[in-house]
Amino acid sequence: MKKININELSNYFDQEIEISGFVENIRNMTWVQFIVLRDLSGKVQITIEKSEEQNKELVEIVNNLTVESTIKVRGKLVQNEKVKLNGMEIIPNSIEVTSKSELELPFNYKDLNSANIDTRMDYRFIELRNEKNLLMFKVQSLFVQAMRDYLYNNNFTEIHTPKLIGTASESGSEVFEVKYFDDKAYLAQSPQFYKQMAMASGFEKIFEVGPVFRAENSNTNRHATEYTCFDVELSYIDSFEDVMELEENLLVAGLTKVKEVYGEKIKEVFDVDVVVPKTPFPRIKLEDLYKELASRYNYEIPSEDIGDMNAETEKLTYKFAMEEYGSEFIFVTDFSKTKRAFYHLRENGIPQGYDLIWKGMEITTGAQREHRYDILKSQAEEKGLSEDVKFYLEFFKYGCPPHGGFGIGVDRITMLLLGLSSIKETEFLFRGPNRINP
Amino acid sequence: MKKININELSNYFDQEIEISGFVENIRNMTWVQFIVLRDLSGKVQITIEKSEEQNKELVEIVNNLTVESTIKVRGKLVQNEKVKLNGMEIIPNSIEVTSKSELELPFNYKDLNSANIDTRMDYRFIELRNEKNLLMFKVQSLFVQAMRDYLYNNNFTEIHTPKLIGTASESGSEVFEVKYFDDKAYLAQSPQFYKQMAMASGFEKIFEVGPVFRAENSNTNRHATEYTCFDVELSYIDSFEDVMELEENLLVAGLTKVKEVYGEKIKEVFDVDVVVPKTPFPRIKLEDLYKELASRYNYEIPSEDIGDMNAETEKLTYKFAMEEYGSEFIFVTDFSKTKRAFYHLRENGIPQGYDLIWKGMEITTGAQREHRYDILKSQAEEKGLSEDVKFYLEFFKYGCPPHGGFGIGVDRITMLLLGLSSIKETEFLFRGPNRINP
Repeated sequence: MKKININELSNYFDQEIEISGFVENIRNMTWVQFIVLRDLSGKVQITIEKSEEQNKELVEIVNNLTVESTIKVRGKLVQNEKVKLNGMEIIPNSIEVTSKSELELPFNYKDLNSANIDTRMDYRFIELRNEKNLLMFKVQSLFVQAMRDYLYNNNFTEIHTPKLIGTASESGSEVFEVKYFDDKAYLAQSPQFYKQMAMASGFEKIFEVGPVFRAENSNTNRHATEYTCFDVELSYIDSFEDVMELEENLLVAGLTKVKEVYGEKIKEVFDVDVVVPKTPFPRIKLEDLYKELASRYNYEIPSEDIGDMNAETEKLTYKFAMEEYGSEFIFVTDFSKTKRAFYHLRENGIPQGYDLIWKGMEITTGAQREHRYDILKSQAEEKGLSEDVKFYLEFFKYGCPPHGGFGIGVDRITMLLLGLSSIKETEFLFRGPNRINP
Repeated sequence: MKKININELSNYFDQEIEISGFVENIRNMTWVQFIVLRDLSGKVQITIEKSEEQNKELVEIVNNLTVESTIKVRGKLVQNEKVKLNGMEIIPNSIEVTSKSELELPFNYKDLNSANIDTRMDYRFIELRNEKNLLMFKVQSLFVQAMRDYLYNNNFTEIHTPKLIGTASESGSEVFEVKYFDDKAYLAQSPQFYKQMAMASGFEKIFEVGPVFRAENSNTNRHATEYTCFDVELSYIDSFEDVMELEENLLVAGLTKVKEVYGEKIKEVFDVDVVVPKTPFPRIKLEDLYKELASRYNYEIPSEDIGDMNAETEKLTYKFAMEEYGSEFIFVTDFSKTKRAFYHLRENGIPQGYDLIWKGMEITTGAQREHRYDILKSQAEEKGLSEDVKFYLEFFKYGCPPHGGFGIGVDRITMLLLGLSSIKETEFLFRGPNRINP
């Protein structure tokens, strides 16, 4: 007999059926026992009349049953208007306890405020049973699926680049070191160099969804030592405008699908409206942004951040974007070359890239890349990196199309989409300087 | 002006168009210059009459052009039956050299036999320009896409589990160690434990496509220290038969799509027939298989491998499967518990799992998992692992549905699909004990 999902039960009234799930609740009364059974799709009541002779064994099973155990139930599904839970109940003829939960749970996962964040992360496998979390991962999965589909439909190829790399590229201080047989290796901070390698190889349009690793000893609500990045790169662009346009369309594709399937549910569970943005997103040059923030909010960027943004700027930029354009999203362009990676292509000394701010937080750095060996080499030298990135510079010696791309932090956009306060809540298992378990 | 893909040119005869690509070939004759331009979709000829006054600048550009440079060309597309390449040519009015290739390539990537495997891997970014390789990654991407779509359509959720783990689980000797701030971490050999955690959390059906890491110092054609694994896990199964059935359907979905889109091209380029297998795949118990191999091929398994398979057995098993069932695929079941992981559920002492052999190589180990805390703990103790996997055993204390799953090596199935001889050829960038660059 095949398990039926609880949310499909109404197709099976008065039939013998089989369901399975976690025991949500047990009420053992004088004359009757009630179980509420839960699977991923819903909940249903199981009712056992104690007085009936054939129920003797069942009653004994339920007497010994603990909440959160899993059971497999066969029985007859009947309509009963008196049952508050969907007006139906199952009259079982067999109950099999497939796994037994300890009586006491480490914390009450139904109330996420009942435990501190460390307890919750120690018992993440319990916490994830909370309906918010189950919904969150369904939403994240669909968001990524819809963005992938957009790219597949536009002839992108998915690649899988190595996470083990031979040299500590970009900036050695933030890279994890790996013992590699008798040698050392490092964990890739991003697939950046290999995405570009694919361009040099003629792949034209690629993407990758995979883990990236950052050995930053910082404890904020938006940083993690490991997270999932959705990385995209495409060739034969005319400017970074082509990159921004692709990212706009990608996010619209993802958010359209999420709103369509889960919009109402997200409103109900997270009290958040999923907004499908209009394209093009507003764009503003960093210098103009500074002026707006100064005149509107009396905000001056600290001197050490000039040419760049900081967390406060990002928040105010969101405020500005909503006020001026009614847009949750805004592209900020024309950062200082001192604040941008050496591989950004420059025009008149200005890096041809952008940050994308969503709801007050940077979710992407994107750019046209420098694809000409000589210029790239001199930009690496200028940052004192030419030795570190020697293997990478090789990619550009034998022709490479003009190209650009971006990366989106999947956990971060999940956090912003659902209005959550920390990336600790959105990673399947958060990894930070003090958190490597379970 | 927007770049047009070369394979779509025939829609643009007698129009002014723009194309971009790599310079495949240059012929500089007395009266005329020919360039063959290549993008991912095809090749086209560009023709410059030297005698024409307005071509003076173009002629100069082509005089200095090197093969494998990238150019952007604007001009008129005309039909010309004399041109062997698709009967068309472009009469350019502008050529922009967007990147310049060095004159000498490290090796001739059009003939993969012209260099040894180490040179090819040192210059993988050149080697990937070979049309076989470009096709291979298109095929792999589609294969994975089609398998993902199958799972999405069956209500699976995609998750992203951490690769940084706190304890060297399963078998410490084959795990890479990472310097993690003032502590140590390890790289996950598989998402196995976390897939199961998702089951304990009530996710029911999940999958993940991501990197796995194996610190095995072995140099074979099928092993790598890092590769991409397609991992699946599902709850509320009745036996591992449900797991095998899912894997069959998944592979059929993938191969059907690959055959539909690339079947002919694969035949042409790799001389391989893509076969969509019939379900159910044949199944055989290990002991019966031994008997078949003995009687048919006079093969006796070496005593140290009894209860398991080795490379030779896998090859002969393929032979047997083709002879007896006409099937490229065969499930082998009933391995010895001494040869299987502690977390396989056992029935009468027999692990409820399987290996799937395709074209003579194991592509999957799958199983129903032991989901009951007490039994799982004692099976871990029996293998001397209970301390190492303590964090994992916790997952099963508070109820966990019966579940099972499997993992498929993406690089390995790509190799087998296309009849290639080594995983070194199918990874975007191969990683082995002696290979960590580029």
